[in-house]
Amino acid sequence: MPIVTVVGDGQLARMMHTEAIELGVAPRVLAGDVESSAAQVFGEVRIGDYTDLADLRAAAEGASAVTFDHEHVPNEHLQSLIDAGVAVEPRPAALIYAQDKLEQRTRLSELGAPVPPFAPIASAADAARFFDEVDGAVCLKATRGGYDGHGVWFPSSRDEFEDLVEKLLAAGTALYAEAKVPFVRELSAMVARNRSGQVAAWPVVESRQADGVCRVAISPAPGLSAELAVTCRDLAVRIAEELDVTGVLAVELFETADGSVLVNEMAMRPHNTGHWTQDGCVTSQFEQHLRAVLDWPLGSTEPTAPVTVMVNTLGGDADPETPMEERVIEVMRRYPDAKVHLYGKDYRPGRKMGHVNVAADSLERALEVAEDAAHYIINAEWK
Amino acid sequence: MPIVTVVGDGQLARMMHTEAIELGVAPRVLAGDVESSAAQVFGEVRIGDYTDLADLRAAAEGASAVTFDHEHVPNEHLQSLIDAGVAVEPRPAALIYAQDKLEQRTRLSELGAPVPPFAPIASAADAARFFDEVDGAVCLKATRGGYDGHGVWFPSSRDEFEDLVEKLLAAGTALYAEAKVPFVRELSAMVARNRSGQVAAWPVVESRQADGVCRVAISPAPGLSAELAVTCRDLAVRIAEELDVTGVLAVELFETADGSVLVNEMAMRPHNTGHWTQDGCVTSQFEQHLRAVLDWPLGSTEPTAPVTVMVNTLGGDADPETPMEERVIEVMRRYPDAKVHLYGKDYRPGRKMGHVNVAADSLERALEVAEDAAHYIINAEWK
Repeated sequence: MPIVTVVGDGQLARMMHTEAIELGVAPRVLAGDVESSAAQVFGEVRIGDYTDLADLRAAAEGASAVTFDHEHVPNEHLQSLIDAGVAVEPRPAALIYAQDKLEQRTRLSELGAPVPPFAPIASAADAARFFDEVDGAVCLKATRGGYDGHGVWFPSSRDEFEDLVEKLLAAGTALYAEAKVPFVRELSAMVARNRSGQVAAWPVVESRQADGVCRVAISPAPGLSAELAVTCRDLAVRIAEELDVTGVLAVELFETADGSVLVNEMAMRPHNTGHWTQDGCVTSQFEQHLRAVLDWPLGSTEPTAPVTVMVNTLGGDADPETPMEERVIEVMRRYPDAKVHLYGKDYRPGRKMGHVNVAADSLERALEVAEDAAHYIINAEWK
Repeated sequence: MPIVTVVGDGQLARMMHTEAIELGVAPRVLAGDVESSAAQVFGEVRIGDYTDLADLRAAAEGASAVTFDHEHVPNEHLQSLIDAGVAVEPRPAALIYAQDKLEQRTRLSELGAPVPPFAPIASAADAARFFDEVDGAVCLKATRGGYDGHGVWFPSSRDEFEDLVEKLLAAGTALYAEAKVPFVRELSAMVARNRSGQVAAWPVVESRQADGVCRVAISPAPGLSAELAVTCRDLAVRIAEELDVTGVLAVELFETADGSVLVNEMAMRPHNTGHWTQDGCVTSQFEQHLRAVLDWPLGSTEPTAPVTVMVNTLGGDADPETPMEERVIEVMRRYPDAKVHLYGKDYRPGRKMGHVNVAADSLERALEVAEDAAHYIINAEWK
């Protein structure tokens, strides 16, 4: 059976690992650290540096596909692998749009996909001009390297904006700005696509964020009209096709007060807003990603319950004295239907350490159980 | 998080491995061979002999629980581990009833559980006497070591029976005989029990066998009356409690023409008739077994679909030239809802190499897809 190399050692790689085994795929990870989330569990671990071509080459040897749990591998290295005959999925020509947000905005705009007004910011003068254009409703972003709220700023005045821009440009951070969108909620439309062009879409979910970090995902998005659901799904499918994405694509969206959507971010890999699929769908995003990068036929994306809710367990302000094992046991005692997933990570405030999935007949029940269970995992006390 | 050591390197250990990781449990396997089904995938593999106390001791070191994927570890070694403070689950005092069928028959009989008429067979004279008692409807069994139809004989005449008994006794095989039961079908009642005494039962399934090997399991058993379902479930719960079973217990049953049941076999570990739980139930038997042996609270045994069918992919008469990967791909192409599980085993005729689970709204659909998919995996051609 085929080898799939996953570059990156976080929880996304870890969760691909178990699905790979059930698929009969031999998973291999290129990890930075033997103690990392993924390296703890993979049978075949290559320790190395994902910015080093020799390490990448060694990890790719004999693999039917090379894929990623993050977007930070230098594209010139990926091209070298491709030139040597390695199936890198997704390919750099697609990945660039997940790596560089200005490239993404520009390309989506060319495709006619709905995006907020945006502009590259290469000087304080650019900043001043854009600030006026959007009446001060500005969101400044690093074009590369941002995630979970990092690399995003909301200046409240033109002076603050200009100062920020000068400081960041001086530090070598490439920037662009976009209009701050007054949205009513965030949605996520996820699809998978294989090299042969088959595409499968999951139900559109609602994503609830705090401080730029996904905290809750609800599938399907409550009260979403059938028309808007189709719009979101078709948009994600079209982006996957136009950008030649392979593997899982997450398109994060703003739903606005007038009932339309704008694209926020994109990721070309399993995504936090798709973790619910592990316990609420015939095919999880991790299995689907592997099928897609191997160019295997995609699995059914039918949900297995009316509602599935995922709540992240982010490290709290302090690590409770109660050991994690006891917390898990308490949650299991109270909620036999809560599925706790842990990433094997040490405590840090705000760190994504795991998540809880709950599938149920009603939104109220799923949300209540998942929220309560996650609260206990984090705090060792009930709400 | 806790370490669980699994003794035995087959597919049951392999499937515990992936569930352990998602639970945050660190799985370790004591395997006989680095190429075995389980050793291929475990991160922590100890190569050793499960009949060797030193190897068992080394594999148990630091583990929160030691459990099994088969019943063949010498009980005196398990007792030594227990004496040294190791949590061996299930314990030898329970395991004996899964290891020795005559002990099992005797104990169940004492409990008033329904079993066929039976007798120990220590001589040709015993055989002759029992043959007459049951009017020649005889099933002869080795008390130990049988599985999947091995160690079971159906002599068709008294002479054949006596000859067989003499030959087997001379070869050192301990024997007993029981009345051959005219059953209408086979059922399996599965439960899990933890050390604290919590018990959870799955729906009763119908098990279809060929040549003594489970080929199909259907959950829930079609057309099973609510009363008989409760009878089967209560019987399995009572056996788990009376025998102090920990972990998963499978009670295989004969359903007879008069609508009652008789106990056939028992296993104290995840069981072939429980594989459907991987894709049709909130808590799979592999997750539940780990929770039970750790004395963690048990998970919900609610099904996630109206019907789930499992079909084994047993090695056929010949291994098709089409590589397994291509067979899997073809099945995925035709059936996006078929879940193929492979054990990483080389081909041998009749060998359990994997299984296919299909959850569906109707029995017809689930059975058709699972049978067709399994047929293709085995034969590389559609029925």
